[in-house]
Amino acid sequence: MRKLFVLALIVITTPLIADEGMWLFNRPPRALLKQRYGFEPTQAWLDHLQKASVRFNSGGSGSFVSADGLILTNHHVGLDCLAKISTATHDYVATGYHAKTTAEEVKCVDLELNVLMSIEDVTQRVNAAVQAGMSAADAQRARRAVMSIIEQESTQKSGLRSDVVTLFQGAEYHLYRYKKYTDVRLVFAPEVAIAFFGGDPDNFEYPRYDLDICFFRAYENEKAVRPAEYLTWSTAGAKDGDLVFISGHPGRTNRLNTLTHLQFFRDLTYPFTLNLLRRREVLLDTYAERSLENDRRAHDDLFSVKNARKAYVGRIAGLQDPAVMKAKGDTEAALRQKVESDPQMKAQYGEAWSMVDKAFATYRPFANEFRFLEGGIAFNSHLFTIARTLLRLGEERAKPNADRLREYRESNLESLKQQLYSEAPIYEDLETVELADSLAHWMETIGADDPLVKQMLGGKSPQERASELVRESKLRDVAVRRQLGEGGKAAVDASSDPMIQVARIVDARSRELRKNYEDNVDERLTQAYAKIANATFKASGGETYPDATFTLRLSFGTVKGFEENGKHVSWRTIIGDTFEHAAAHANKDPFELPKTWMAKKEALDKDPTPFNFVNTADIIGGNSGSPVVNRAGEFVGIIFDGNLQSLPWDYQFDDRVGRAVAVHSAGIVDALTKIYAATDIVKALTGK
Amino acid sequence: MRKLFVLALIVITTPLIADEGMWLFNRPPRALLKQRYGFEPTQAWLDHLQKASVRFNSGGSGSFVSADGLILTNHHVGLDCLAKISTATHDYVATGYHAKTTAEEVKCVDLELNVLMSIEDVTQRVNAAVQAGMSAADAQRARRAVMSIIEQESTQKSGLRSDVVTLFQGAEYHLYRYKKYTDVRLVFAPEVAIAFFGGDPDNFEYPRYDLDICFFRAYENEKAVRPAEYLTWSTAGAKDGDLVFISGHPGRTNRLNTLTHLQFFRDLTYPFTLNLLRRREVLLDTYAERSLENDRRAHDDLFSVKNARKAYVGRIAGLQDPAVMKAKGDTEAALRQKVESDPQMKAQYGEAWSMVDKAFATYRPFANEFRFLEGGIAFNSHLFTIARTLLRLGEERAKPNADRLREYRESNLESLKQQLYSEAPIYEDLETVELADSLAHWMETIGADDPLVKQMLGGKSPQERASELVRESKLRDVAVRRQLGEGGKAAVDASSDPMIQVARIVDARSRELRKNYEDNVDERLTQAYAKIANATFKASGGETYPDATFTLRLSFGTVKGFEENGKHVSWRTIIGDTFEHAAAHANKDPFELPKTWMAKKEALDKDPTPFNFVNTADIIGGNSGSPVVNRAGEFVGIIFDGNLQSLPWDYQFDDRVGRAVAVHSAGIVDALTKIYAATDIVKALTGK
Repeated sequence: MRKLFVLALIVITTPLIADEGMWLFNRPPRALLKQRYGFEPTQAWLDHLQKASVRFNSGGSGSFVSADGLILTNHHVGLDCLAKISTATHDYVATGYHAKTTAEEVKCVDLELNVLMSIEDVTQRVNAAVQAGMSAADAQRARRAVMSIIEQESTQKSGLRSDVVTLFQGAEYHLYRYKKYTDVRLVFAPEVAIAFFGGDPDNFEYPRYDLDICFFRAYENEKAVRPAEYLTWSTAGAKDGDLVFISGHPGRTNRLNTLTHLQFFRDLTYPFTLNLLRRREVLLDTYAERSLENDRRAHDDLFSVKNARKAYVGRIAGLQDPAVMKAKGDTEAALRQKVESDPQMKAQYGEAWSMVDKAFATYRPFANEFRFLEGGIAFNSHLFTIARTLLRLGEERAKPNADRLREYRESNLESLKQQLYSEAPIYEDLETVELADSLAHWMETIGADDPLVKQMLGGKSPQERASELVRESKLRDVAVRRQLGEGGKAAVDASSDPMIQVARIVDARSRELRKNYEDNVDERLTQAYAKIANATFKASGGETYPDATFTLRLSFGTVKGFEENGKHVSWRTIIGDTFEHAAAHANKDPFELPKTWMAKKEALDKDPTPFNFVNTADIIGGNSGSPVVNRAGEFVGIIFDGNLQSLPWDYQFDDRVGRAVAVHSAGIVDALTKIYAATDIVKALTGK
Repeated sequence: MRKLFVLALIVITTPLIADEGMWLFNRPPRALLKQRYGFEPTQAWLDHLQKASVRFNSGGSGSFVSADGLILTNHHVGLDCLAKISTATHDYVATGYHAKTTAEEVKCVDLELNVLMSIEDVTQRVNAAVQAGMSAADAQRARRAVMSIIEQESTQKSGLRSDVVTLFQGAEYHLYRYKKYTDVRLVFAPEVAIAFFGGDPDNFEYPRYDLDICFFRAYENEKAVRPAEYLTWSTAGAKDGDLVFISGHPGRTNRLNTLTHLQFFRDLTYPFTLNLLRRREVLLDTYAERSLENDRRAHDDLFSVKNARKAYVGRIAGLQDPAVMKAKGDTEAALRQKVESDPQMKAQYGEAWSMVDKAFATYRPFANEFRFLEGGIAFNSHLFTIARTLLRLGEERAKPNADRLREYRESNLESLKQQLYSEAPIYEDLETVELADSLAHWMETIGADDPLVKQMLGGKSPQERASELVRESKLRDVAVRRQLGEGGKAAVDASSDPMIQVARIVDARSRELRKNYEDNVDERLTQAYAKIANATFKASGGETYPDATFTLRLSFGTVKGFEENGKHVSWRTIIGDTFEHAAAHANKDPFELPKTWMAKKEALDKDPTPFNFVNTADIIGGNSGSPVVNRAGEFVGIIFDGNLQSLPWDYQFDDRVGRAVAVHSAGIVDALTKIYAATDIVKALTGK
């Protein structure tokens, strides 16, 4: 223990260690790759990988893997769609699905996929909008305005979805243009029992035996898309020691964060989030256990909650380790020392850390109320979210584009409406249970005598009020939503829908909190971190990468096993051992293999085909479904998890024992062929 | 909804409604029973029931039901013992047990049973020790001292366990003398799958189909006890409309609480407790899911946690209902008005409510720290509890009896040591998981920079520190505990056991918090509630009963069904319908019937024997296992639950829809005969 501890200190304080980095496609780690692996990616290699990569806006990654528009992602990324198209009598999650013909492919209800077509650095234009001496509030407004204008111009010119992405927490701004797919259809999904084999106990663990895959097909004008770029399938797949690349959409990391910022996470944000997640987990577990239909309805939410809970437990555990915090503190002290000792750097960046401290001192007193109201924790309800969106859509559209709340900017409205008018089912019972509990949670935290709480409850208990609101609101009807959404402010103002009324009650205070957050917290952090990022560039001198932002990134690493509790864990598992892993847990849920697998037990018991494997590439939540490719740019696997040791990658990468976990391309073909007889898909992938 | 709401206000504000009351055996509701049911219990009737009743000190109730010392309780009351005597290879919980001969009966490891032999009112002597003008701290000390002396005198004179019980929150003090049984052996338990059929989803619900029973036998000097009193078995059992009585040990109610006190529960105590319970539930669920052996190890704890969580959710829901709080407030206002309008009452009781307010204002700033340190929430570990007990045992025994912390008073040492030297297994892995999480919880709540937190962790993460402490402590060895426990202060002072060291680190602060609580919160509440109770006596003028104190109480009520969502719910379920209830949930855990039952499915599918039934008697947690008797004092059933609507009975009884839930005596005999062929037990119970 002691040895590992000392080593950790040394390694952690060295910047850019090992295979670290979630690199921008317009700024790949050329020198690093050449030096460490003798590999020099061409622009064509990069463009091919970039345009074969797909973002799932429901949260996750994927890739085009065939000439006729097949997209491969994880089952757990596809789960959102699978749950929304399932019914009490046809449960795509439990039974899996295989469309034998294109006619049998099932259309997702509100899925939007994005493919990154180009990146343009617009930092200068954004920064030029913010003038010296502006108040924080004015700076915030000016920056938001110019970003909305850039996006709207780009959308009008290119017809593509255009997002200005804030990188390095505010040091740079890049314009990302995406091709958008909104007609996406389910082609193949295995049973959840094998996709998520081992369930919560095996989640974030390794070795694993999961067929965590799902095939969709993109359509345009009712025809299967022929994508410009798609990945060639490697039937051999990844091998021990291979250099591999991962192209995907890591959601969020916090590696640039100052010590104050991490302490705030450790002491406030993460404990709060974990309490919330545990509360929802117990609530949903209790609901799900009551009947098989309840279990089906809650499955997707419950998966997300348990997955997040386990990830946060791992993250907070790292921050609660004094050695980790000391290492972070030492790195920060070294950088500050460099800044202090250079008069020019001191003038430019010196005050950054105290600006971060001030931002959190400002945030602390209203953080809870902000999360409950503007963050919506008090109203865990699809109907409330719809009501608030309708209310604000009416108000925001009446303003000039540059002045709107960011999610209502002109260039985002199409995507926003796809969500707002979604035909995804809303279950009255589950909606009531969740809203009642979240209202009670709000009441417990903010106080039963808070005027807004009292106004919201109107003399009723949270249970009674939630039940009444869900029962009486008409917003489950998509036609009603459309009528209000398209009718503008006047239509919404005229509505007496109880959920809209409720959204009205909290909206003034909620907007006030958001403004306070944006002007006095977010803006201060943006300005401070721009300084810290620039100081880090100068101090390090080398190539670097920004924290994750759910935009396309390139990671690289080596396929290799690791040591755990003194034992070597192999780089890969094999299909045959899946049956043994089930038997070791008495084949009981969540280790109960589906019938399709049990039927092939004797045939596959010794099957040595690689199933899952690990590598050292740098990933985080959002990378789920990312393709793993080899030097030739061929598909050799698909990321679906990280091991427990990778959880602190949130704020500190370390690949001595942390690993990304993937399904192997050979294992996929093996299962599709031998278990599912999905020869059509195999042919589309491999040509055979 | 509106109608029920108004009705609730009217009924709730009326004192002593319906079949309310957990009555003292030395002050039964004679007038009430005579007036309402024309029933006049004789002293012999009362003595018989009292002495046939048994308290399980692990938490619960039971009764002697045969001449040869058979004791019947709930399976979930026996669960603590069942878990402690089970091993990885012999799981009494899962498989159930039936000792065919007395030689096969399995001895429990640390179970203590108490039978109440006599009650003596010692209020005057206790009150005489507290002199006018004493400070709160001195009053607290004087009262505690005289209680310890009374107990020690009684134990020496009678040889019986003697406890001075604080009743009416301090208005009265009664001396309870118990016969104690510490050699208790398991005779029969069904499988947990039928004892707790329906699991957490069906817990606190009705209709139910649970064989929640367990038979033990008491021994003295290696011989089966021949109890002075035991209950005669009624083979017919309870019928619809019957007057029934329940003799058991309700743990705790809060009905006398002021509005301030209930608000403190609603806003602080209950949310805190619920967060803690949810945290432990998720932790234990996660641990249990990893393997079947983990599941076995965690079963008992997990049951307790889920059961408590569901109960607290019901309780807080009531307090979060403004109508309930208004009714409580109205009742309180009426009483205060009476007190204010009578100069003598005003002088005696007038300041009581502001004393309660002051007590909570004092408590609020240190409530969290108190619960974490003295309440032990920071150290969720058997080994820590043992270490603290050893440390304090050494210190407290060196003091005069009257000056000791109450649990170390001379008359309690025998019971305390039975727990301390228990051979119950302590699992290193589970112990580590629980301690690590509770240390992290403490760190999150009190702050990573708290000096005690830092000292306790010693530069390590909670996980690392917990792992080290559990691995290196020798206190799992009962011989080591005995050596330290019997060696006194010198032996404990000399110990370098890491868990004892850790107990030492927090002990000074922990004792300081306890002293602050006892002197400034508890004592103020005792004095205030003595006033409020006496004011209530005077104002009501009739018979009354104190809040529950885990001492023997008599409740009464009527066997009858209730209305729920507009439908009538029958007073009883039948054995035959159990199979249908399982099928409605696809026979999946927790609705999976054990093999013994499935084997008899065809034979019993239509069996009309009553299985579970409900009645209106007033119960609460701790009443589990209480016998239900008829006018003749015969055993007609055994309490095992209350329905959801009974959960607010914590602070307000209401039997319009709230019900106590019991297993029917005929159902027990039916199952023992037809499923388990336990003819020996049936003969002991019924003579047939």
